[in-house]
Amino acid sequence: MRADVHRFAMIDPSDVSGLRQAMDAGAIDPATIVAVIGKTHGNGLVNDYTRGYLAQSLSLLIGGRIGQSAEAVRARVPLIFSGGVEGVLSPHYTVFAVVADEAPTDGNMALAVGVAFTDAMRPSDIGRQAQIEVVAAAVERARIGSGIAAGDVHFVQVKGPAFTLAAILEDRDGRRAATDNSGKLMAFGRAASALGVAKALGEVPAERAVESVVLEDFSAYSAVASISAGVEVQYNEVVVIGMSDRWTGPLAIAHTAMTDALDVGSVHAMLQRLGFPPAPQIADPARIRAAFVKCEAQRDGFVRGRPHTMLNDGDINEQRHIRGAVGAIIASILNDTALFVSGGAEHQGPDGGGLVAVIVERTRTQV
Amino acid sequence: MRADVHRFAMIDPSDVSGLRQAMDAGAIDPATIVAVIGKTHGNGLVNDYTRGYLAQSLSLLIGGRIGQSAEAVRARVPLIFSGGVEGVLSPHYTVFAVVADEAPTDGNMALAVGVAFTDAMRPSDIGRQAQIEVVAAAVERARIGSGIAAGDVHFVQVKGPAFTLAAILEDRDGRRAATDNSGKLMAFGRAASALGVAKALGEVPAERAVESVVLEDFSAYSAVASISAGVEVQYNEVVVIGMSDRWTGPLAIAHTAMTDALDVGSVHAMLQRLGFPPAPQIADPARIRAAFVKCEAQRDGFVRGRPHTMLNDGDINEQRHIRGAVGAIIASILNDTALFVSGGAEHQGPDGGGLVAVIVERTRTQV
Amino acid sequence: MRADVHRFAMIDPSDVSGLRQAMDAGAIDPATIVAVIGKTHGNGLVNDYTRGYLAQSLSLLIGGRIGQSAEAVRARVPLIFSGGVEGVLSPHYTVFAVVADEAPTDGNMALAVGVAFTDAMRPSDIGRQAQIEVVAAAVERARIGSGIAAGDVHFVQVKGPAFTLAAILEDRDGRRAATDNSGKLMAFGRAASALGVAKALGEVPAERAVESVVLEDFSAYSAVASISAGVEVQYNEVVVIGMSDRWTGPLAIAHTAMTDALDVGSVHAMLQRLGFPPAPQIADPARIRAAFVKCEAQRDGFVRGRPHTMLNDGDINEQRHIRGAVGAIIASILNDTALFVSGGAEHQGPDGGGLVAVIVERTRTQV
Amino acid sequence: MRADVHRFAMIDPSDVSGLRQAMDAGAIDPATIVAVIGKTHGNGLVNDYTRGYLAQSLSLLIGGRIGQSAEAVRARVPLIFSGGVEGVLSPHYTVFAVVADEAPTDGNMALAVGVAFTDAMRPSDIGRQAQIEVVAAAVERARIGSGIAAGDVHFVQVKGPAFTLAAILEDRDGRRAATDNSGKLMAFGRAASALGVAKALGEVPAERAVESVVLEDFSAYSAVASISAGVEVQYNEVVVIGMSDRWTGPLAIAHTAMTDALDVGSVHAMLQRLGFPPAPQIADPARIRAAFVKCEAQRDGFVRGRPHTMLNDGDINEQRHIRGAVGAIIASILNDTALFVSGGAEHQGPDGGGLVAVIVERTRTQV
Repeated sequence: MRADVHRFAMIDPSDVSGLRQAMDAGAIDPATIVAVIGKTHGNGLVNDYTRGYLAQSLSLLIGGRIGQSAEAVRARVPLIFSGGVEGVLSPHYTVFAVVADEAPTDGNMALAVGVAFTDAMRPSDIGRQAQIEVVAAAVERARIGSGIAAGDVHFVQVKGPAFTLAAILEDRDGRRAATDNSGKLMAFGRAASALGVAKALGEVPAERAVESVVLEDFSAYSAVASISAGVEVQYNEVVVIGMSDRWTGPLAIAHTAMTDALDVGSVHAMLQRLGFPPAPQIADPARIRAAFVKCEAQRDGFVRGRPHTMLNDGDINEQRHIRGAVGAIIASILNDTALFVSGGAEHQGPDGGGLVAVIVERTRTQV
Repeated sequence: MRADVHRFAMIDPSDVSGLRQAMDAGAIDPATIVAVIGKTHGNGLVNDYTRGYLAQSLSLLIGGRIGQSAEAVRARVPLIFSGGVEGVLSPHYTVFAVVADEAPTDGNMALAVGVAFTDAMRPSDIGRQAQIEVVAAAVERARIGSGIAAGDVHFVQVKGPAFTLAAILEDRDGRRAATDNSGKLMAFGRAASALGVAKALGEVPAERAVESVVLEDFSAYSAVASISAGVEVQYNEVVVIGMSDRWTGPLAIAHTAMTDALDVGSVHAMLQRLGFPPAPQIADPARIRAAFVKCEAQRDGFVRGRPHTMLNDGDINEQRHIRGAVGAIIASILNDTALFVSGGAEHQGPDGGGLVAVIVERTRTQV
Repeated sequence: MRADVHRFAMIDPSDVSGLRQAMDAGAIDPATIVAVIGKTHGNGLVNDYTRGYLAQSLSLLIGGRIGQSAEAVRARVPLIFSGGVEGVLSPHYTVFAVVADEAPTDGNMALAVGVAFTDAMRPSDIGRQAQIEVVAAAVERARIGSGIAAGDVHFVQVKGPAFTLAAILEDRDGRRAATDNSGKLMAFGRAASALGVAKALGEVPAERAVESVVLEDFSAYSAVASISAGVEVQYNEVVVIGMSDRWTGPLAIAHTAMTDALDVGSVHAMLQRLGFPPAPQIADPARIRAAFVKCEAQRDGFVRGRPHTMLNDGDINEQRHIRGAVGAIIASILNDTALFVSGGAEHQGPDGGGLVAVIVERTRTQV
Repeated sequence: MRADVHRFAMIDPSDVSGLRQAMDAGAIDPATIVAVIGKTHGNGLVNDYTRGYLAQSLSLLIGGRIGQSAEAVRARVPLIFSGGVEGVLSPHYTVFAVVADEAPTDGNMALAVGVAFTDAMRPSDIGRQAQIEVVAAAVERARIGSGIAAGDVHFVQVKGPAFTLAAILEDRDGRRAATDNSGKLMAFGRAASALGVAKALGEVPAERAVESVVLEDFSAYSAVASISAGVEVQYNEVVVIGMSDRWTGPLAIAHTAMTDALDVGSVHAMLQRLGFPPAPQIADPARIRAAFVKCEAQRDGFVRGRPHTMLNDGDINEQRHIRGAVGAIIASILNDTALFVSGGAEHQGPDGGGLVAVIVERTRTQV
């Protein structure tokens, strides 16, 4: 098996011409597509409909090629989009395909990808133990199915449901939702899913991967989880990416946790582990095949001792601020602006910091 | 003469406690203050009143200490603020003081500062030849008065007037304003002033420093100009900063022009000229005394070949996007978030790029 | 012939469940649908993708029912959406169907609807004479085809193309676009199309329906035009609505031009012409079948002598301000918040004012 | 005693020329000013500094005229500003002056005004019983001092403190603040103060004016309270306005509670009580001397059965939406856009509705 990774720019959330042309040219067999992760034009908050628009557009395209309905595609292929291309960031989507590879495995590790879905959830499930458990189970299924050892997982993307106020208020027969603020409920969902990932991978012991920790004790976190939420899904979609000696191909993934928004040292160290020569900026950005960043405004209101204003701003949401800032920093290092940068990093890396994972083409000299 | 540079954080635009305490402690003699440049909490656009609020607060404080009215202080001391602390940026103001120095000049160059004012302008003057000329003359006065050779100027900050729609429409007896869009008129003013700076310093020949070039031919630019506009002033205020052998003290300034938003190479080269060892991030940020950045969204809609969305965004102004992005990149290099980062870089550096100027404390080994 | 008008709420721009259920119930024959006009969740500016998302969703639904591709539906049925449900406004879409009516016409006038399309346009055509002419011709075709006398037209909705910066800059072989500011180009397009409507209906003489008047002389306007623009179409779509004695059914339309944002008198007068008893608020809102409002921030910066701040605001676009304000005023009168309220009323009604058109079910006593 | 009410427009938050000219002309004796209430240009949220800017500007002006420091003025005269002039609303401030009146009272009631202050509060006091109690006591002092019977109070404006995240996090020695979300803490403060008003006036019994009701049971409310919060004050300022037979003069106040955003019937009924003839819009707006509106987005997500989107919006805060909408509706009735319209109506009128209070000049024929 070999994991192929194709990244396409898009003009608007219905612009799937990149994938269409690649399929027309035979570069991608639509039947091999297992997941798509992308960054769309919206605000990344509750009222961001660009995620759903791209998901609809892609599922129609893929379904049309393989004779499936759009709904069937969406039930099988995680289509995970995060809104918000603030600053220099560039809207794009990354297609993951798994292809049979005639080359035998050679004992070396290569990029590996697995996916899983949970059942649909209701507003009152969000942020609760139920979500922790179903996400943990889905991560486990995806990981084991793809033959990645727990310690070799470098990135787990989860997309879970968000709900508008109307939907939250409707879900009345039973337990109340954790909050009736729709934006806040997205945070609950991201937090619970992150703890689910951490539990599945053994990053947090089971006794701490519990509901009472959600949004309360940020010392419990996953170093590889990236969680998004959106009104366009009702279930949780899971993509597990790592390294495995059961896979082949030229691609590799590594990750690091930034300790705060300015922690570029950890990113440079990761790049050197991937074989890049030391430099403030990568000279050969063509080797970057995809990059994923998770970040958030530091909760104490400071960055390295100086106050920031992101959490007091009534005009621009804190997530838009921090995505634009950390996204630009990583773009300046990777020499690449088509990054998946997602805010809302509750229990995803240390408080105020965040995850950076990069998929690269290995150079010949690198083991 | 010695130029002292003091940077203070502020909680809100009326928080002048930093300067007050420094004066109380005898660290700053209020009579020696010649200019203040800062970054306030607002949006940096027409309806940003945080600039005026800080100017009022500081002029009251300084005036109260030296027995002058706030108005007299403002007529003598440029108080230049730019709104917008997007992302990791931190609100602050930098106080420039010129003090008599018993130490004789030693033939080496040191930081030098000069200031000047123009007369008041009307909306119909903005972006016109009149503004080019008066700004050029003011830059010349400030530069010569402070003994800086034209080639040793590293940073020229100009703050010019902006006008609300009502004021624009009122100015009817004579020539119409260049535009009746108040935000656009700010751009005209920044552009004309930048050409005025370029003319004064010989960066652009006189025959190209003309009205017809304003916002039309961006190949004409100043590499050291940083222009802001705001409704809180009616005239242009000019601060010229450079190096001169008639000045003493441990401080130095250097500048560079980024060719685009990701051009970190030019910044690192500048830092090495200032004696910093090569590194993605400065290890000793205490040496940074102030930093000034000018930037703008690339007009062709791309950054290094990938589309950005800053110029299509109806929710967040392009200037807020680019300040947050380039500000974060420079902050990650300087290890310092209290940067003066200003958008709207028309004719201020190459298109899509911008100016970076840094005032540092020299190490012993540096000439 | 009878024009039926069905209005449906929607939760998000992919929520076409209202129309689906109506078709399932046999209340609407999908083959009879001639146009859909609606108000979606986005910002109504360049980066509003909710219009395209709803258009895609509706064309898939309708096409699926009648065995046409989504593209074929869109080429035949104007799907015209305007983003922005500020304040109390409610997202919805209004479906116009034309059905054969066994009842003979009785000499009375009834609601009549006609549609037309133009060819695709390029960025450099927008705001130019070409657009004035093709829109005028399309209005004429739609009006004549539906048997509405020019003086009986009460509402003409046009949706024309908008372009992102990238598209504008690409269209280089020939004349430059009127502006390379994408938001401003939307205004040019609305203005030229409005003059096209005015020319077609004889509201403005041919010699004044010319390019040089576009965005320059606002005394030339149509009192019945409502123009939107969006990146989701490349051509102009036209829907002409009026009264005709060749049509039957219980519905009627009337319109009025508000002279400024507070001109509720004209709205009440129109309602009384439609048979509503005088009252600050309609007591029987079920008679309202659809309502269309066009408005804009008064260009001189005042409303009835007091300054407004809409044109100086860098945080919220002027169109969002005025839609929320005028939309709420009309909603308070009609006792109905599912209004089509569109900003950007260049040459659409008097400066600072705007069009209000209402489709109602006639009471028995009304002629 | 006579209460005079003067309303002034302002260009920006430092524009106090209206009051200055009135004092220059002898129309207002600065020593008689007891309170100023106004609407400034900012967003009305945590990072709105226009409130403090106007307060600073006015206190400097008034203090300069009567030989007091700005601080002394602010400690004696409530200067209460709410940010946000969305839509057609117009920035302004209303000056309340109490003057000795040679005319003896005639047994009729006239406009009466009283003010009071509380001690400074800490973040951990906000939204707590402490705030309920001190506000209740201050309302009682102000009311009794001005001779207004509890049943004759028509409007109570309270301005309480807000805190930035930094200040909230600093206040650690003791009880934690109710929330460390600065915007949410403003809501807690408004809610507790409203219950304080309701307790003082007997609108809510003491056993329900308790901390556990704050933001939980919205059936407990004051029908005359209007509460704002801002970082520019540390204490609560209270202005009580009503009718009293111990006061003289031509002015009167009335109030009503809108049951929802479209409840114009209650406003028209109030206007008729004040002697205005029935009409959708007041023909003689010069009689309006000031108007105060409190409103909020309906918590269930609907207005009269149709969904609104205000609570799902990540681009524009819900308060900005509802102020623009309800403000426009009231402006269209009063024929006046210089209204004080404030969002965040927790426990201030029925859920989803809000208070409208109007000060008018009585006509001769009215008792």
